Amino acid sequence: MSMALENPRLLSLAAGFTDNATLPQTEVAAAVQALCAGDPEPLQYGTNAGRPRLRQLLARRLEQQDGDGQTVPVEEVFITNGSQQALYLAMQVLCDPGDLVLVDQPSYFVFLEMLSGLGITALPIPVTPDGRIDPEALRDLMQHLRAENRIERLKAVYVVSVFSNPSGRSLDLAEKQALGRVLSEENVIRPVIEDAAYRELYYTTPPEAPSLRALREWQGFPILYLSTFTKPFATGLKVGYGMCNDRAWLSQMLHVKGHHDFGTANFNQAIAERVLGDGTFDRHLTTIRPEYERKMNALHDALVAGGLPSLGWHWQPPRGGLYLWLEAPPEFDTGLSSEFCRRCIDAGVLYVPGELCYPAGGPRNRVRLSFGVLGLDALAEAARRFAKVAGTF
Amino acid sequence: MSMALENPRLLSLAAGFTDNATLPQTEVAAAVQALCAGDPEPLQYGTNAGRPRLRQLLARRLEQQDGDGQTVPVEEVFITNGSQQALYLAMQVLCDPGDLVLVDQPSYFVFLEMLSGLGITALPIPVTPDGRIDPEALRDLMQHLRAENRIERLKAVYVVSVFSNPSGRSLDLAEKQALGRVLSEENVIRPVIEDAAYRELYYTTPPEAPSLRALREWQGFPILYLSTFTKPFATGLKVGYGMCNDRAWLSQMLHVKGHHDFGTANFNQAIAERVLGDGTFDRHLTTIRPEYERKMNALHDALVAGGLPSLGWHWQPPRGGLYLWLEAPPEFDTGLSSEFCRRCIDAGVLYVPGELCYPAGGPRNRVRLSFGVLGLDALAEAARRFAKVAGTF
Repeated sequence: MSMALENPRLLSLAAGFTDNATLPQTEVAAAVQALCAGDPEPLQYGTNAGRPRLRQLLARRLEQQDGDGQTVPVEEVFITNGSQQALYLAMQVLCDPGDLVLVDQPSYFVFLEMLSGLGITALPIPVTPDGRIDPEALRDLMQHLRAENRIERLKAVYVVSVFSNPSGRSLDLAEKQALGRVLSEENVIRPVIEDAAYRELYYTTPPEAPSLRALREWQGFPILYLSTFTKPFATGLKVGYGMCNDRAWLSQMLHVKGHHDFGTANFNQAIAERVLGDGTFDRHLTTIRPEYERKMNALHDALVAGGLPSLGWHWQPPRGGLYLWLEAPPEFDTGLSSEFCRRCIDAGVLYVPGELCYPAGGPRNRVRLSFGVLGLDALAEAARRFAKVAGTF
Repeated sequence: MSMALENPRLLSLAAGFTDNATLPQTEVAAAVQALCAGDPEPLQYGTNAGRPRLRQLLARRLEQQDGDGQTVPVEEVFITNGSQQALYLAMQVLCDPGDLVLVDQPSYFVFLEMLSGLGITALPIPVTPDGRIDPEALRDLMQHLRAENRIERLKAVYVVSVFSNPSGRSLDLAEKQALGRVLSEENVIRPVIEDAAYRELYYTTPPEAPSLRALREWQGFPILYLSTFTKPFATGLKVGYGMCNDRAWLSQMLHVKGHHDFGTANFNQAIAERVLGDGTFDRHLTTIRPEYERKMNALHDALVAGGLPSLGWHWQPPRGGLYLWLEAPPEFDTGLSSEFCRRCIDAGVLYVPGELCYPAGGPRNRVRLSFGVLGLDALAEAARRFAKVAGTF
């Protein structure tokens, strides 16, 4: 298998990378020229929480995106090394080994791995057969945990709410409301992390539901809202951000961040601040959104042309983000150690086995395909290889 | 006091910032122009351990600096968010709350704070009155720990070996050898972190002693050697690096780094790689070394002119780095809550109280002054204020 992985013709639908062709080279070069012609301060140390002006611009942006009159105080905003660091800080200060965290299913597999590394158990939020949050099953789960005296070990809730990695779907307003309502009614007021890393990457229309922090059902919950410039702008700069409405939780995370690195690279923040402030970021978004839609369609169309639906596979084309989430027939095994996975690698195509996106015991017939990094022709060829292998089972 | 801290005329000799006037604006702008005109890859995600070419250049550089024929395998090198992140990763994987770490004294106060935050006890390496490591007292301490059954709780050793923050001094060859020899003879083979963040910032001649990993007395020890581009190049890029000769320890640190951020910003690494590879970094060093010496002398001369030596204060001008380390008369209290500290703030000058650079119970008559960020005139004025306050005690 390691020999097969060295195949130079291997096409990866696995890596969650962004589109090389539209990375903002000109934009970053221009921002850096301007920054380096002025005050040297961007090349100096910054502060632990991040640049005040950048944080202010981000607060205003969330207010506008939610559009419901909520205010986001700049003190609640902090800048991180990608949103990944914020996830780590959140878990580090909230949880001890043996604790439980509620996660959506499927969930972001790097987060699940991190939980596992910290000795924390991920507990899936029950969903209906069509993948929506199931409020009554969640209520049962909460009551069950309470009956088992495990409810106190439940320390946090994590949802990838917009164009989810891996599922591509967004929680709609009713799901967001129901989730908050059930947790409230069951008196499970726990810190919630809303991961909105892909929020800017809609294709034609923004996701309809506002963030949890803007919803009445979530008043009283400590909420950490996360997003990033890594997916929608310059991936290699790794600038993410968090907004936390609970000052004690925020202060603990910033304390640990002070020990991690005492502040994300100030220069990268200055670039983000500049492109956000002068409209470059928004202009860039208008160029990449149709590009990602085109790439999504290229992969989708090639999978259809390859005959995957007639083999019993199905999926929902997403309205944003970087992923197709495929469901194979029920007994089809796409796992890491499956024959299908091995044969795909032999055929020169890589994917993320869906089993990685669930706590142990989840479905084994799902596949995450990323259309972020490959070009249109490569996407078509990778889809052809994938469908061809599927057809031999 | 908070009002005094808002004094716009306040001069800070406390912040360990670098020299604004010599930050490499032109060099970074040129590197970015070149990078953004080529392959978009620097704006894409990189790898968790860091860019292979950058790691190779750093390995070669350490081999040349030590100049003793040691080889540094590129697999041992990894890139971090400043050397701070490497310190955190090292402690996170080596220590549990209640453990002990041997530290030089005085030591880097951010590291001491981090230990405290992780519930780890810092145990000072005994020194002679002139501040050199005292091998026989260290031997006694090791035997004492063993007799008390605490030796197993000792998990690591940390030394800031070159132009130390805060003391400005370097461990000489004899000290480095003696430290390794005593630990070996006492069978205390523990992971050692050598923090060489200021190694490139010598004024006229490089520090004479090679790194621990090049010394015979340290063979058999797991060693993590740390340094950074943050002090000698573009501070705001926050690119640090580690070299670890113990593959198990390294692999654990990289595993955790994968959860922190799965890789330091690739773009920043690409800048560092470019300036290191094309000679820009070395040319920059030749311009900033005399500049820092000039600033050190400006602060030193102004403190002397202000009469500090005649008040019983003394210090050794360093041969590199960013700090003067002053010793006041024995009963003089420079602590955070001291009258002297308050009066300095009132007079418009900030310093780092030496007590922060020791575990609890250390001397209270030391002061760290940084000459990194202020210009020559401001350094002279800050020194004048400092000496004037000292003269009123």
